[in-house]
Amino acid sequence: MNTKTEKGYAAGRARREQIVAEATLQFGRVGFNGATILEIAAACGISRAGLLHHFATKESLLEAVLEERDRADRASFCRSGSAQSGGVGVLRGMVDLAARNAELPGIIALYAVLSAEATDPAHPAHEYFVKRYARIRSGTETALDKAKVAGDLIDSVDVAAAAIELTALMDGLQVMWLLDPDGIDMAAQVRRAVQRLLVFPL
Amino acid sequence: MNTKTEKGYAAGRARREQIVAEATLQFGRVGFNGATILEIAAACGISRAGLLHHFATKESLLEAVLEERDRADRASFCRSGSAQSGGVGVLRGMVDLAARNAELPGIIALYAVLSAEATDPAHPAHEYFVKRYARIRSGTETALDKAKVAGDLIDSVDVAAAAIELTALMDGLQVMWLLDPDGIDMAAQVRRAVQRLLVFPL
Repeated sequence: MNTKTEKGYAAGRARREQIVAEATLQFGRVGFNGATILEIAAACGISRAGLLHHFATKESLLEAVLEERDRADRASFCRSGSAQSGGVGVLRGMVDLAARNAELPGIIALYAVLSAEATDPAHPAHEYFVKRYARIRSGTETALDKAKVAGDLIDSVDVAAAAIELTALMDGLQVMWLLDPDGIDMAAQVRRAVQRLLVFPL
Repeated sequence: MNTKTEKGYAAGRARREQIVAEATLQFGRVGFNGATILEIAAACGISRAGLLHHFATKESLLEAVLEERDRADRASFCRSGSAQSGGVGVLRGMVDLAARNAELPGIIALYAVLSAEATDPAHPAHEYFVKRYARIRSGTETALDKAKVAGDLIDSVDVAAAAIELTALMDGLQVMWLLDPDGIDMAAQVRRAVQRLLVFPL
């Protein structure tokens, strides 16, 4: 591969990254339904045709945004070590995640708006969010199960119900926090909810 | 007023009600940002101009949708007697509300999508949702305070934090339930969360 081609690839990659970053902002601001290719292109300083050269449809751009977020989340979860640290480690990871989320209002808005829009079965991200919640819920349930076996949970905990409750709490807090950032401490609320399940201080 | 004019008023009122009902569906399906006056008009079997005769802007139609929902909610809450029945009565009312919500997927989708979209300060319903959450949160706090004074709460309950948690839980459950109606029992989850606060069986 010659240098000119390499430069071309690098420029193309940089442009794609810029488009995905702008689309993340727009989808989080006005939703997938409200966002337009034209406005995302304008924010990147390119034409509609220029954007469509990289992403042929708004749906393929949405897919790229969600893939990029999943990649970033996996990387962050592995760095925090939560994935390797047993049941209580994962629960501690949820508190850390709530704290990190408070630094990322744009990403939180993205998931809040898209997950609500995607409850419509006709939404292009419907299947994605059905699977995402199933995965988060069962991941939380597995962590609670491990903690229970390790003797870390108080006896009265219903693992399946607690997994749903923690997942719902994390999500509900995000919308409340976006509407009232000074009035809601997401990490403190999640910490309280996790602490209540444990036989020792978190 | 003559009979002809009365008929005209009644027809106008019926048309407005139809438009508000269709807008409720559309806003819940694709959001305020995604909905168009043209599609709402078409669903009513009228022209865009015909709709704009009743509601001059999409914003004024959104306002009418939210007012209509508030009116229906107040009526339902008064019928259930929760408003008059002291602290634990209001908490019991939250469980009943979660059960009733499971009969109203369209309305639940409406609030889920609009509240997420409205976290953007530029959204026309931003102030509405900031105030709505402040009201729900302080109403729940007042109910918990009354229950505490009456000796109905276990000692360890932090009333302010529990009010935030119950509000967030109700909301988070709604999106999860819309995505997985058979896998989530909203009323059972809210009942568990309320029961945990009380010294006696709910």
